[in-house]
Amino acid sequence: MSARAGIVVTGTEVLTGRVQDRNGPWLADQLLELGVELAHVTICGDRPADIDAQLRFLAAEGVDLIITSGGLGPTADDVTVATVAEFCGRDLVLDDALEERIAGILRRLIGNRAGVDFAAVMTANRKQAMVPEGAEVLDPVGTAPGVVVPGTPTVVVLPGPPRELQPMWPRALATAAVQEAIAGRTVYRQETIRMFGLPESGLAETLRIGEAGIDGFDRMEITTCLRRGELEIVTRYEPADAAIYDQLVELLRTHHGAEMFSTDGALIDDQVAELLAGRTIATAESCTAGMIAARLTDRAGSSAYVAGGVVSYSNDAKAELLGVDPALIASHGAVSEPVAEAMAAGALARFGADTAVATTGIAGPGGGSAEKPVGTVCFSVRLGDGTTMTKTLLLPGDRSDVRERSTTVAMHLLRSVLSRAATPSRGS
Amino acid sequence: MSARAGIVVTGTEVLTGRVQDRNGPWLADQLLELGVELAHVTICGDRPADIDAQLRFLAAEGVDLIITSGGLGPTADDVTVATVAEFCGRDLVLDDALEERIAGILRRLIGNRAGVDFAAVMTANRKQAMVPEGAEVLDPVGTAPGVVVPGTPTVVVLPGPPRELQPMWPRALATAAVQEAIAGRTVYRQETIRMFGLPESGLAETLRIGEAGIDGFDRMEITTCLRRGELEIVTRYEPADAAIYDQLVELLRTHHGAEMFSTDGALIDDQVAELLAGRTIATAESCTAGMIAARLTDRAGSSAYVAGGVVSYSNDAKAELLGVDPALIASHGAVSEPVAEAMAAGALARFGADTAVATTGIAGPGGGSAEKPVGTVCFSVRLGDGTTMTKTLLLPGDRSDVRERSTTVAMHLLRSVLSRAATPSRGS
Repeated sequence: MSARAGIVVTGTEVLTGRVQDRNGPWLADQLLELGVELAHVTICGDRPADIDAQLRFLAAEGVDLIITSGGLGPTADDVTVATVAEFCGRDLVLDDALEERIAGILRRLIGNRAGVDFAAVMTANRKQAMVPEGAEVLDPVGTAPGVVVPGTPTVVVLPGPPRELQPMWPRALATAAVQEAIAGRTVYRQETIRMFGLPESGLAETLRIGEAGIDGFDRMEITTCLRRGELEIVTRYEPADAAIYDQLVELLRTHHGAEMFSTDGALIDDQVAELLAGRTIATAESCTAGMIAARLTDRAGSSAYVAGGVVSYSNDAKAELLGVDPALIASHGAVSEPVAEAMAAGALARFGADTAVATTGIAGPGGGSAEKPVGTVCFSVRLGDGTTMTKTLLLPGDRSDVRERSTTVAMHLLRSVLSRAATPSRGS
Repeated sequence: MSARAGIVVTGTEVLTGRVQDRNGPWLADQLLELGVELAHVTICGDRPADIDAQLRFLAAEGVDLIITSGGLGPTADDVTVATVAEFCGRDLVLDDALEERIAGILRRLIGNRAGVDFAAVMTANRKQAMVPEGAEVLDPVGTAPGVVVPGTPTVVVLPGPPRELQPMWPRALATAAVQEAIAGRTVYRQETIRMFGLPESGLAETLRIGEAGIDGFDRMEITTCLRRGELEIVTRYEPADAAIYDQLVELLRTHHGAEMFSTDGALIDDQVAELLAGRTIATAESCTAGMIAARLTDRAGSSAYVAGGVVSYSNDAKAELLGVDPALIASHGAVSEPVAEAMAAGALARFGADTAVATTGIAGPGGGSAEKPVGTVCFSVRLGDGTTMTKTLLLPGDRSDVRERSTTVAMHLLRSVLSRAATPSRGS
């Protein structure tokens, strides 16, 4: 048995991409946790014919539950409830008690604001008190009520603003109609493994080995995704198949132990933050120009270990603010390992830090040469005890890719050096 | 006549919300500009049955063009091309020349990297050279080729990574099959106006005035979107209605002239870059911690005017690297206008720049007080001639919102100061 669901996101501003839909992903996550299989997310504008077509499509696909978001407002372009009622073959009826509750909300919101004709507002909002006959009403979080229409499939109609939709979802879930619709759900576990520096094709090869050698391999649902140079491997399986998953982890560890940096879902940012506890870090950035500092300070509490950084875009800045010897730049070039090392050493000294990371590279599109093409980036990580790791990489992509990828590489170099270093004794 | 299109976004990571889809919105925008009506966007996982169901749904809805994104990789879970081939009733055939081109790309990417079995990689990637019979191949941007399958509807199959999809789209568009499919499109003009510092309700009020007073107002399609504190107003109209649009622009200028910073679609980043020509800028960032420097250097050629910056997260760094008097911090606090001004002055001096911008604020979640709550940010812009503009704002939202919004505010302050300043005489 299983339970399948579909999500219908309505709204011209979402369809045209001017507003990014946040409800589809949020509801997808809720369904995943419940063990309800999400088959389709569909997006259309505020047009009855298109909404109806999507509802019919999902019903034909045999989903047990449809969740719609958006189109519950008082204006004429909000048509979801009426369209769903027609789709479910139910009349729209005025819910007097609901109308009174909406009036109460509006009275509190609008009060005696000058120039507002309250009767006119109420006429516009009466529409929101019209519900499909026999539907269960979900009380408004804002001014728009939601509805649950029992049936095959059961349809849950939720408002568009995420701050209204999210609190309303648990109430929808609690209704008998939704519980019945998702009765066949399966409980899954989901685990995430992360790797860095492995091409997707290398992983594909290993997964084929697993497919051939691990009994029950097909019972796991494995999805892989390459992002910022990191490979994310998400596996879903039923709890009874945990031993099969363990074999997969072992297989990946055997083949890609060096590239596998996380088996518990932790991000590189989480790991670096943890490794920096009790330390003080400073950055010296040329091509990434503040992106590493911004990323390190992205999380709350980072002021405990981030001292600061220098963006040394010009050669003068490298000399002035980081004490890089201009002769070094003259002889090796600004994009070189000796300069990266001098930048890291300079950051360490200037900020009185015990950990420093430096980048200098050619992000493009100009500035490349045969010897140092666009995408050439030198990295150096240096600790207070003199430990240094320096690397030069040739990164693919355009300017923005090179800068982003460099930031991620810097995080991984930091992790690599810090995880081998002894915990610093402060005040030494 | 008209031309209708549908977009099928595939990928379990997108369906489950782990990765935010960027292709749907981007393609929606492209179609809009072309005058092709987008009816539906559908999202499903990497499952042939679900992809096929969505293709059949869109075909049944009578769209002229279907664009798919994702599922073109070498791994077994990438099934889009095979599914589209079957949907279109065409066999998959190996394109030898394409296989050789992919091999060439992989050879350059992987080279002689130790431990990589090139033959195994090529086996995995042969799949990418299988194309529907009679389809037009779109050469890979990464390693995955796209295809255009002529028919009713015509299907364009594009890769998932936006940096591969986006450059490939114009090539798809140029094919005879796509041109034929969209032959019925209506040509629209689309113009974008940008405002900063105006609440959405203020704009709504003005648009109501326009609706009542401008003849033919309803023939324009106006959508508004609030993003990063900036209000974007996009208007579509047929070329014959240009005079009506001009009246709208005049109306908005009359009511919101101070807030309107762009009527030609230019971004604040474009404007600041232009104003910085012939200048040298340095940043001094506390709460934004490198985000302003990163944003200024986002565009190619920025090394001509960006000297660098200091991320002074700790008080010591403010004193050491920017020369901020510790007594100033002690008496006014690190988040104060005098400290912001001293930071800007310090950046100006240390980098030998003629333009500087400084931020110091409380991004949260901790660190707020009754007097200086979370979201309090002080900004200062200073020019070489002593011109200074300093401001304190209370910004809404969480840590990430405050940091992002601060970065945008800094850009607008720079624009404001620089657009009133005389062009600097270098060497003075």
